[in-house]
Amino acid sequence: MSEVRAVKLVTLLGSLRKASLNAVVAKNLPALAPDGVEISALGSIGELPHYDADIQASGFPPAVLAMGQAIAEADGVIIVMPEYNYSVPGALKNALDWISRLPETPFAGKPVAIQTASPGMIGGARAQYHLRQIMVFLDAQVLNKPEIMIGQAAARIDAESGEITDESTRQHLTKQIAALARMARQTRHSA
Amino acid sequence: MSEVRAVKLVTLLGSLRKASLNAVVAKNLPALAPDGVEISALGSIGELPHYDADIQASGFPPAVLAMGQAIAEADGVIIVMPEYNYSVPGALKNALDWISRLPETPFAGKPVAIQTASPGMIGGARAQYHLRQIMVFLDAQVLNKPEIMIGQAAARIDAESGEITDESTRQHLTKQIAALARMARQTRHSA
Amino acid sequence: MSEVRAVKLVTLLGSLRKASLNAVVAKNLPALAPDGVEISALGSIGELPHYDADIQASGFPPAVLAMGQAIAEADGVIIVMPEYNYSVPGALKNALDWISRLPETPFAGKPVAIQTASPGMIGGARAQYHLRQIMVFLDAQVLNKPEIMIGQAAARIDAESGEITDESTRQHLTKQIAALARMARQTRHSA
Amino acid sequence: MSEVRAVKLVTLLGSLRKASLNAVVAKNLPALAPDGVEISALGSIGELPHYDADIQASGFPPAVLAMGQAIAEADGVIIVMPEYNYSVPGALKNALDWISRLPETPFAGKPVAIQTASPGMIGGARAQYHLRQIMVFLDAQVLNKPEIMIGQAAARIDAESGEITDESTRQHLTKQIAALARMARQTRHSA
Repeated sequence: MSEVRAVKLVTLLGSLRKASLNAVVAKNLPALAPDGVEISALGSIGELPHYDADIQASGFPPAVLAMGQAIAEADGVIIVMPEYNYSVPGALKNALDWISRLPETPFAGKPVAIQTASPGMIGGARAQYHLRQIMVFLDAQVLNKPEIMIGQAAARIDAESGEITDESTRQHLTKQIAALARMARQTRHSA
Repeated sequence: MSEVRAVKLVTLLGSLRKASLNAVVAKNLPALAPDGVEISALGSIGELPHYDADIQASGFPPAVLAMGQAIAEADGVIIVMPEYNYSVPGALKNALDWISRLPETPFAGKPVAIQTASPGMIGGARAQYHLRQIMVFLDAQVLNKPEIMIGQAAARIDAESGEITDESTRQHLTKQIAALARMARQTRHSA
Repeated sequence: MSEVRAVKLVTLLGSLRKASLNAVVAKNLPALAPDGVEISALGSIGELPHYDADIQASGFPPAVLAMGQAIAEADGVIIVMPEYNYSVPGALKNALDWISRLPETPFAGKPVAIQTASPGMIGGARAQYHLRQIMVFLDAQVLNKPEIMIGQAAARIDAESGEITDESTRQHLTKQIAALARMARQTRHSA
Repeated sequence: MSEVRAVKLVTLLGSLRKASLNAVVAKNLPALAPDGVEISALGSIGELPHYDADIQASGFPPAVLAMGQAIAEADGVIIVMPEYNYSVPGALKNALDWISRLPETPFAGKPVAIQTASPGMIGGARAQYHLRQIMVFLDAQVLNKPEIMIGQAAARIDAESGEITDESTRQHLTKQIAALARMARQTRHSA
């Protein structure tokens, strides 16, 4: 019975700085997951070179292959990212550019959820709809709701202690993980 | 008389591979410029590390500073890029992410034109509107028309010889350069 | 056995003019549907007043209620529309604005496919990603692929005879209908 | 001396309901304008029929002609709108669809500013970038900054008294009007 097996989700983090509020979010997700859902982290997007078709021609970098395989094996992906300049961080987009070129794109049909945290009021919304458009090309199944846009994030997340201090934010995250896991179970079932 | 000085434009190329159709476009722009317009190339986006606020904290990389200064000194910028996964190439967005953090963002008020070439029919349109949204944050003045979206680019551009073989494409590019130069002259005038 | 029942799809047309190329597309869809798929047309968006919360307060217009109910009863929706000014036609958006206010929004979880036909090369792509963003709010399941953007539509569609003269366009439409029907069967199954 | 003449701006309101928060914003703009700036309201978008090329073929509706002429005579346009379903209200888009078909599109080169008020945190941001994409086609000059997205609008605007109760919102609006007027003066000067 496939329902018994845990749903395995992986997180893809779109920020490189150590004290990133989004990194705190990503690190807290395993503890916020409901029963029957396991969450682990993909490798860092910082390990990938800039996408270059000439590099690709002589072989995909090992970090790209590893990231692609981990996504392929997962039941779903949670992308946690800041908004840079009203869009997706370049380094994260670069990781997606590499992954999209893999012979069998691991995002096809894959359940995906998006989370953004940002200091402003808008909470990263502008970047999310760009990411959704990118995901159409990658043929991923992006969860509609609940959307997670953590505005005024510095007041809800403590980068020093590594804690999400705002209880409603934690509950909201758990709800989204549960919704993604539900989508992942249905996808597995209908596959 | 300010009108007498040449308008200086710089090109920012969003592709790294050697045989890039967009690289051919960028290389041909100086020869396609109308009288009184000089076009030179910015450094490669491949020289920049992935944006990381921790790197920034210990000083901007020299390639970022050089790119920022060249943009600041130019009268306008032409961004020539492929579309990757329905959006801006990650490596190009990464360059913009760095430049946006410079103490005085050189894009503020700067005239900008966008050119995309792609093998498909759509010609990169999807990436252009993402770039336009990014440019709102950077406070650039993005030229509305003519838009340059070179579809079926492999039939119009010869990557081997490095020539734009389609005459109407060349004329269209010249028109856009002229429109950008006009905007640059007005901006200089009203500054 | 639910699989035996035909999949019922409805079309929502985004153009009002009689000789509309998109109207021709919509009218041809029933004949292009694969076996086991029935397609019928929703009422005209022209029958709805401009959305006004004051009208809503005194009761939804009958045309809105009828459209909402037909969507609720369908297994999926095909939206066929022109691109106006790089976005969704206002009159179509107005219909969606009304439908979104119904007590139980009929688009929630509903499989949706998008088709655009336009005289230019881009084929309506710009409008499609706006519609996809709108559909996130409506919580619809929008089909990723195949995307239908019929460029140079006047050469592929004969508005006078009401025929889609281009065979590859007809095949492409049948493929999308089949993909939407597959999504609709899975949704019904997992519900 | 052209600088002496007042800058004339017109407002285009994207909501029809009487107690609209955005209507309150629009009504307060004349009093918030700095010296030398006059603001008046365009006619209601509710007076326009749904765009239909067949209607257009027998003559533009008088309300479209009047709106187009008022925009043509103005030095700039302020569009004040709610966000409906993550995008521009259909009835407002419909007005733009009509205006775009006028023989001489009055938006070409016209300075435009955008204001949105909404009950949520995001303040209408999602609709603004759709409107900006539309304005590329219309060839308008859309002001980048300051952006006006009035979140939690019910706490800042009193629909009953018709007052903007939040002082910082009022100041922010005045700043944007001043920035638009500056752009309008430069445009007039360079024309």
